[in-house]
Amino acid sequence: MLEILKKEVLEANLELPRKGLVTYTWGNVSGIDREKGLVVIKPSGVAYEHMSMDDLVVIDLDGNLVEGHLNPSSDTPTHLVLYKKFLEIGGIVHTHSSWATIWAQAGRSIPALGTTHADYFYGHIPVTRGLTPEEIGGAYEEETGNVIVETFSDMNPLRLPGVIVKKHGPFTWGKSPSEAVHNAVVLEEVAKMAYYAYQLTPGIEPIDDPLLDKHFLRKHGEHAYYGQK
Amino acid sequence: MLEILKKEVLEANLELPRKGLVTYTWGNVSGIDREKGLVVIKPSGVAYEHMSMDDLVVIDLDGNLVEGHLNPSSDTPTHLVLYKKFLEIGGIVHTHSSWATIWAQAGRSIPALGTTHADYFYGHIPVTRGLTPEEIGGAYEEETGNVIVETFSDMNPLRLPGVIVKKHGPFTWGKSPSEAVHNAVVLEEVAKMAYYAYQLTPGIEPIDDPLLDKHFLRKHGEHAYYGQK
Amino acid sequence: MLEILKKEVLEANLELPRKGLVTYTWGNVSGIDREKGLVVIKPSGVAYEHMSMDDLVVIDLDGNLVEGHLNPSSDTPTHLVLYKKFLEIGGIVHTHSSWATIWAQAGRSIPALGTTHADYFYGHIPVTRGLTPEEIGGAYEEETGNVIVETFSDMNPLRLPGVIVKKHGPFTWGKSPSEAVHNAVVLEEVAKMAYYAYQLTPGIEPIDDPLLDKHFLRKHGEHAYYGQK
Amino acid sequence: MLEILKKEVLEANLELPRKGLVTYTWGNVSGIDREKGLVVIKPSGVAYEHMSMDDLVVIDLDGNLVEGHLNPSSDTPTHLVLYKKFLEIGGIVHTHSSWATIWAQAGRSIPALGTTHADYFYGHIPVTRGLTPEEIGGAYEEETGNVIVETFSDMNPLRLPGVIVKKHGPFTWGKSPSEAVHNAVVLEEVAKMAYYAYQLTPGIEPIDDPLLDKHFLRKHGEHAYYGQK
Repeated sequence: MLEILKKEVLEANLELPRKGLVTYTWGNVSGIDREKGLVVIKPSGVAYEHMSMDDLVVIDLDGNLVEGHLNPSSDTPTHLVLYKKFLEIGGIVHTHSSWATIWAQAGRSIPALGTTHADYFYGHIPVTRGLTPEEIGGAYEEETGNVIVETFSDMNPLRLPGVIVKKHGPFTWGKSPSEAVHNAVVLEEVAKMAYYAYQLTPGIEPIDDPLLDKHFLRKHGEHAYYGQK
Repeated sequence: MLEILKKEVLEANLELPRKGLVTYTWGNVSGIDREKGLVVIKPSGVAYEHMSMDDLVVIDLDGNLVEGHLNPSSDTPTHLVLYKKFLEIGGIVHTHSSWATIWAQAGRSIPALGTTHADYFYGHIPVTRGLTPEEIGGAYEEETGNVIVETFSDMNPLRLPGVIVKKHGPFTWGKSPSEAVHNAVVLEEVAKMAYYAYQLTPGIEPIDDPLLDKHFLRKHGEHAYYGQK
Repeated sequence: MLEILKKEVLEANLELPRKGLVTYTWGNVSGIDREKGLVVIKPSGVAYEHMSMDDLVVIDLDGNLVEGHLNPSSDTPTHLVLYKKFLEIGGIVHTHSSWATIWAQAGRSIPALGTTHADYFYGHIPVTRGLTPEEIGGAYEEETGNVIVETFSDMNPLRLPGVIVKKHGPFTWGKSPSEAVHNAVVLEEVAKMAYYAYQLTPGIEPIDDPLLDKHFLRKHGEHAYYGQK
Repeated sequence: MLEILKKEVLEANLELPRKGLVTYTWGNVSGIDREKGLVVIKPSGVAYEHMSMDDLVVIDLDGNLVEGHLNPSSDTPTHLVLYKKFLEIGGIVHTHSSWATIWAQAGRSIPALGTTHADYFYGHIPVTRGLTPEEIGGAYEEETGNVIVETFSDMNPLRLPGVIVKKHGPFTWGKSPSEAVHNAVVLEEVAKMAYYAYQLTPGIEPIDDPLLDKHFLRKHGEHAYYGQK
């Protein structure tokens, strides 16, 4: 069942340590089969080096276990909220990658300071508000999803495929699990360069709209001309 | 004698260079057999790449040599003080890992700035006071243990499994040698991210108690639900 | 056709990820056969790990496709402008390497702070002005080349084999594709060290001319004596 | 001739890229046979990956070529001055390693901020004065040696086995070529940690003398007890 999706999700999870995005088990990738309404996600607290396809967990969008012998990631409710509200996305990644996480700890969004950022994110990468004590004490992981959705009220999640959860860390997404990982790598690199650019010259401004448009749209717009057809 | 513990201690020592925590021989791991009252520890100044189980040193809690042909780590008296005072712990690590050590050189404790910290350390990671000239001139390594114990007077060492010794570097511990190494890796990552978060935005506040509680207790409390049963 | 140049260009492209200068496909190297007036360049958006000589694209100096089954790098018009104006150069590299890019994001040129810089760059590495909205909306990649040429109006490109394009990233060049990569590696290292030196002591001065002359000319001048004959 | 010393010098040179201390050919190690008065040194500008024992150059203390088919390192006159003035040393290393070099570019000595420093360097690592235009225009490399010797007028070079040459980079030494490399690695790590400690808390003080004495002397003093006998 869902063999192809499982392969993609396993491969995407294994890509996290290869790209230096995770320490121990601090990260997870999921993917969704929109037709069947089923999500494949990493099990909770399992080391990447021992993970196999059989360890992956299949759940429905209400969080009911459909297949698997392990507990799903404790962040599963966050993933489910995002899949239910962001209908265009097919994969989600959560990590505590160092550079994105320091922006989370500082509670700041990441401005578009250069073309590298603009090639993937069509504007600044937003930070959520902090959760209230009630949200933390309640369905914490689900509320984490809700606060992300709240942050994106009027934004297209595929034009801004990532977010910084305040005091916590980044979530990214994409049309597929592998694209979500790709965006996690880019967010980490962009977070690193923005940190250093601000240290070098405090107060620098984000790039102007024409340059932002040019770079995002030459890769992602209707008239994109980057790469191969 | 103590073959299983020796294997664990050897493996834990070899994990230090793999995780990038040591330069040359600047680190050591020990483990204790509480029933027998015996400690297994790394020999002093021996390169990790040539270390075998035979090189490990077995001592009792008074520091008497029980087995081994090499001198134990010069930090052995520090380990022994901790084993005698922190009865819950089963393994200890000392390194000069870069990020933790810069906090030591600055003489500062590491605040809990995010959930990554809260997943492992239930509050800020404390720094000891500096040793007095008398303590340095006397039983220096033993006094280093004493000042750590002094710092933890009213804290549970398993809820805060690490400390920064002022002007020196970190010690971590855990229920086993491998858990102590795990905590050393986490402390290093947490120290790095706290450094950068403060550079990005000086004066940011530690996370609020509800978030600290939530993250520490979902992994370590009685009602923990992270990972597999 | 152009087998030797293709080999050089392929090898130079593969050197970019090995030297840590690129994330994913964010970089490209080209080389020119001056006699034939033909340029060999990396295809657009193709992963380095799967690239072969057949994937390289051959174009003339007007950008007409001469050989190849893939689209050339979207930065090709920039390369062509440089080859047409900098007649001494034989290879060009463009990357988004982290350290050089933060200087681009901050919009600053990189001063010659030490002998490492002076060994390769005979003065500060200049930053271009930003492109106007008209230039961005027009032939953007060609205008990027024009603004580089404008920046070098009175400088010898082989004595200063690199530039920072504002808000974007670095271009470097050399007598051959491999020398252009070599200079990209040096620029990255020099950009890193200049960043840290300024953080350590804001306001430090560039090196004096006698030291700049000595180091550049002992490697590159008529009376160079570094290396083997 | 000098086969054992050549092996040591080759191995010490190859250790530089392994330890991340050099980019391309930016570094060199030499060793001396005090009885014969002969120095073995790396050839100039030769890549480490292709270097063999036959490529090493043997010279006498006046710089006369005794054996070898390649030019010696352009820094050879600096090495010779140090061997002639620092009679206790048996090996010398010069690199442009990043962390030590930023202190050189900032023109600052590296204070002893913690026990890691004190384990190897008995006080702050000094920076030389800048060379005068006359010294630069004259026998530049020899004058570099002279300014190092001037800096050490009243210090024991084996108690402080390294120096920062202003605007240039570090030199380290030791009883043997391999010990000189060891000290180059330590200097780099110490330079890195001191940079970060100052960023974290500007104005922190060097460690007090009792701690400096304790750590240096437990490893290097007459009553050293670190390591194995």
